[in-house]
Amino acid sequence: MVEYRALIKVMLKPTVLDPQGVAVRNSLLTMGYEAVKSVRVGKHLELTLEANSENGAYCLAQELCDELLANPVVEEYHIELAPAGEEKGGT
Amino acid sequence: MVEYRALIKVMLKPTVLDPQGVAVRNSLLTMGYEAVKSVRVGKHLELTLEANSENGAYCLAQELCDELLANPVVEEYHIELAPAGEEKGGT
Repeated sequence: MVEYRALIKVMLKPTVLDPQGVAVRNSLLTMGYEAVKSVRVGKHLELTLEANSENGAYCLAQELCDELLANPVVEEYHIELAPAGEEKGGT
Repeated sequence: MVEYRALIKVMLKPTVLDPQGVAVRNSLLTMGYEAVKSVRVGKHLELTLEANSENGAYCLAQELCDELLANPVVEEYHIELAPAGEEKGGT
């Protein structure tokens, strides 16, 4: 068993109204940031998974999204795998 | 003025307890997914910005994060720029 990190992005489908994004955009406009034309807000999840192979980890992550992490009716998700321990991102 | 898409990931700093991540992990354990070792939950924001240059767009996104989108005390953010119109992600 090897550990993998799954980076999962869950967003509302482009055709679905995103009230949180609209609220953030309105706040930014009130603060004077008129260069911001649109905002969409979603979730970002970082999971550490144990699996036999990269493919196994990907399939497991997909199953988790379908079962709990995303609502397939209104949301879409994108999975990226990275070796466990590797730090991605930061400030 | 050119339009840019800024993809912003906002996560709690690694040293800060993430109760939402703990709750998701406990749910997954209850559902029988014992291969999931840890979960961290953050925000993913997609902004469309108008700026004169890629550097200008990056600086604006950074300012937005510092002013409203992230709490620098407990959160860290990561900004990625993409040309406007380019779709990234999907299911």
